[in-house]
Amino acid sequence: MIHRMAKAPVLTPRAEDFPRWYQDVINKAELADNGPVRGTMVIRPYGYGLWERMQSEMDARIKRAGAQNAYFPMFIPQHYLTREAEHVEGFAPELAVVTHGGGKQLDEPVVVRPTSETIVNEYFSKWVQSYRDLPLLINQWANVVRWEKRPRTFLRTTEFLWQEGHTAHATYEEARAYAAMIHRDVYQNFMEEILAISVVPGRKTPDERFAGAINTLTLEAMMGDGKALQLGTSHELGQNFAKAFDTDFLTDTGGRAHVWQTSWGSTTRMVGGLIMVHGDDNGLRIPPRVAAVQVVVLAVKEDEAVLAKVRELGEQLRAAGLRVTVDDRVDTPFGRRSVDWELKGVPLRIEVGPRDLENGSCVLVRRIRGEKTPATLSSLAATIPAILEEDQALLLRQSAEFRNARTLDADSVEQAHEAAATGWARIPWAKLGAQGAAALAEHGITVRCLVLPDGSVPDSDDAPDSLAIVARAY
Amino acid sequence: MIHRMAKAPVLTPRAEDFPRWYQDVINKAELADNGPVRGTMVIRPYGYGLWERMQSEMDARIKRAGAQNAYFPMFIPQHYLTREAEHVEGFAPELAVVTHGGGKQLDEPVVVRPTSETIVNEYFSKWVQSYRDLPLLINQWANVVRWEKRPRTFLRTTEFLWQEGHTAHATYEEARAYAAMIHRDVYQNFMEEILAISVVPGRKTPDERFAGAINTLTLEAMMGDGKALQLGTSHELGQNFAKAFDTDFLTDTGGRAHVWQTSWGSTTRMVGGLIMVHGDDNGLRIPPRVAAVQVVVLAVKEDEAVLAKVRELGEQLRAAGLRVTVDDRVDTPFGRRSVDWELKGVPLRIEVGPRDLENGSCVLVRRIRGEKTPATLSSLAATIPAILEEDQALLLRQSAEFRNARTLDADSVEQAHEAAATGWARIPWAKLGAQGAAALAEHGITVRCLVLPDGSVPDSDDAPDSLAIVARAY
Repeated sequence: MIHRMAKAPVLTPRAEDFPRWYQDVINKAELADNGPVRGTMVIRPYGYGLWERMQSEMDARIKRAGAQNAYFPMFIPQHYLTREAEHVEGFAPELAVVTHGGGKQLDEPVVVRPTSETIVNEYFSKWVQSYRDLPLLINQWANVVRWEKRPRTFLRTTEFLWQEGHTAHATYEEARAYAAMIHRDVYQNFMEEILAISVVPGRKTPDERFAGAINTLTLEAMMGDGKALQLGTSHELGQNFAKAFDTDFLTDTGGRAHVWQTSWGSTTRMVGGLIMVHGDDNGLRIPPRVAAVQVVVLAVKEDEAVLAKVRELGEQLRAAGLRVTVDDRVDTPFGRRSVDWELKGVPLRIEVGPRDLENGSCVLVRRIRGEKTPATLSSLAATIPAILEEDQALLLRQSAEFRNARTLDADSVEQAHEAAATGWARIPWAKLGAQGAAALAEHGITVRCLVLPDGSVPDSDDAPDSLAIVARAY
Repeated sequence: MIHRMAKAPVLTPRAEDFPRWYQDVINKAELADNGPVRGTMVIRPYGYGLWERMQSEMDARIKRAGAQNAYFPMFIPQHYLTREAEHVEGFAPELAVVTHGGGKQLDEPVVVRPTSETIVNEYFSKWVQSYRDLPLLINQWANVVRWEKRPRTFLRTTEFLWQEGHTAHATYEEARAYAAMIHRDVYQNFMEEILAISVVPGRKTPDERFAGAINTLTLEAMMGDGKALQLGTSHELGQNFAKAFDTDFLTDTGGRAHVWQTSWGSTTRMVGGLIMVHGDDNGLRIPPRVAAVQVVVLAVKEDEAVLAKVRELGEQLRAAGLRVTVDDRVDTPFGRRSVDWELKGVPLRIEVGPRDLENGSCVLVRRIRGEKTPATLSSLAATIPAILEEDQALLLRQSAEFRNARTLDADSVEQAHEAAATGWARIPWAKLGAQGAAALAEHGITVRCLVLPDGSVPDSDDAPDSLAIVARAY
């Protein structure tokens, strides 16, 4: 049946040029465009639909963690940033500075938030008076700006969208436990359960910490080319910002103490990760739980009965709680539409032609497995939810298997260097050390995180069994 | 029962000083704080909870109107704004300008979006090639900056949050109909059904139009002091931006034409409107449909059975689909907690004390009516949904009655001037004219909109029967 032939989309094969494949997918699946100011991006509806689903799932987890949403101004007086020495040193080179407002030069320049620890602490010091006001658990969804010299869509952009959590606690232990809980129950859970990305939870080395933190927990994922991408971080801030902003409180024993804090963020970069983990040479493969469109019902050609059937089917599947689009644009050739949905990675396509209809059947295309099978029309609403869950699980399994296959245990810096050509290396931190890390850094290979042999997260910088995961990274 | 006495909250009475009452409510109900940069605001969790509910209801309506969410960069090259002459004239005095990024002076300064028509059109001209690409219906949720000389929390802030819709259509008629549909089915419907604010839909006079529009539709509400507040606007942009950015398309007859456009926005200012329409001398009164907390269940005092009961009741009401908070902070005096919930305007309080419990009863406080009645504990889950809907309807009715009572028909400019001391005046536009409007403007009274005698919206600037609504406004 010639009309069913889907032409291969014009994407650069991944093996030929992965970065170019990535840009091709972004352009052709209409996820995003470059913005007019270098390093900025326009997130198009299909890309933003992914972000909306991510927001809704992440937001539910954040609320379950007890945090409430709020909104802090984007404009921060320049002198706020200088109060925490490491923080300003880390962010100064990336700042966007507003010098004029309302037609006048400003008395003090204002920076556009690169992150909000400083302005948040200014208010925490007002809101927190006594131990009864703690813990204070706040999150905000916002845009931030970090001037980017080598921008790449979704991965490194001058402006990006994110959520940033900021909390204050009465004790070191409580803050530490909260940062770890966000790392595990919010971020890792979201990335595995929703994005179907198997991640490695770990601890950053002191050199790779957030500017101003005493500990940074990270989630690292392996992309389709073997490189690493940091997908989210949760920081213990200790009392660094509390001391800089004098955020103290009346303790339950009548004394005064500075609060212990955490902050944690995840960004639109996750959209880039999703593309690079699951995509193949035909385009995107979107995990069903994050797909704005889970099922597309296609009319193969113009035919009254077919058109009526696809619309009816659309209603029926929507009523079953699925996110469905009906493609009845029969004035566009079927092959072109089919390739386009393939490229856009919609998990399931249901193709209905006149001959199918006569048999009460259709062709079911499972994008994630790359399988086409005939199916009975009447059974779809009952069978599809399980099919989608199967394919969601497959993606997660594939991402874990791919990473495991490309992660090598190295005994020396040389072996680690070699392994990083195609994937990750795991090397005892005691063997690598700051010196080995510096040697690898000259070749663009960095320590992504430290983990323990059983996969758990080291609870100090010098936990004796720590293994370093080293890799090239985005 | 002394422990049930709620002390009056310390708010300035509305009749004494309405603006001060407004600020008192914002501070004491913990809705927002002033930001460190003049004119900015910190939206605190209780205020942001209102905005989140507004977003979710508005977003659902926008999606039903066929628009999809996207995200455009906040940084706009300065020269974009100059392309549409009226637009730049309108916005130039309010711009925030970034001159430095990444440690260097920028070649071209960048403005922080005051609104996105220019940058949106830059991309619409790429995305729209043929009539098949139309209509293009886009919305974005974002922050914008308009430097504000006389800021007031929620009402006029240098940075605010909003949604802005941008659409492109093949014909004048279609664009016009879409702008009117958003005005009616999205904005008016949302404001009346969710915010319980009775609004007057009308048409702006040419002087009051959005900079660059050929027609601006508005929704005006009367605040508790008789002043007007513009709660949302929907613009027909004609082909002004399309011509400035050359957004044209291949028509279905093979020619080329510029698109016809609309844009429309609603902002965090609506939170301010909500406060000023429904609030009373005891604080906020939140309409149940927009309340993040619809019901608070209070334990009157420390008592094991009472605490168990309020928690059980909380679960039960949540299971009935209500948004519920359980207040079991018995270490804080009941009176103080009660006043606080009154101030925060939670629609329904259920107060449970030990004696109530013995009788299987509780005290039900309907914040919106100011009524306290005994109720049977076992019937609450069944009766509360209807009670909340009744009180939602009451708020809408009260806001319409208040406005009608304070709107006078005026025959002369003098009469209109007089009426505007306490409310609105309605005066034939033919009688007022641009000259009369200018005379009123000297006294801070402006034409809010034009309406027809039957309450419908005039379809041209010179519709013969038009009535002008004039008022002092926020």
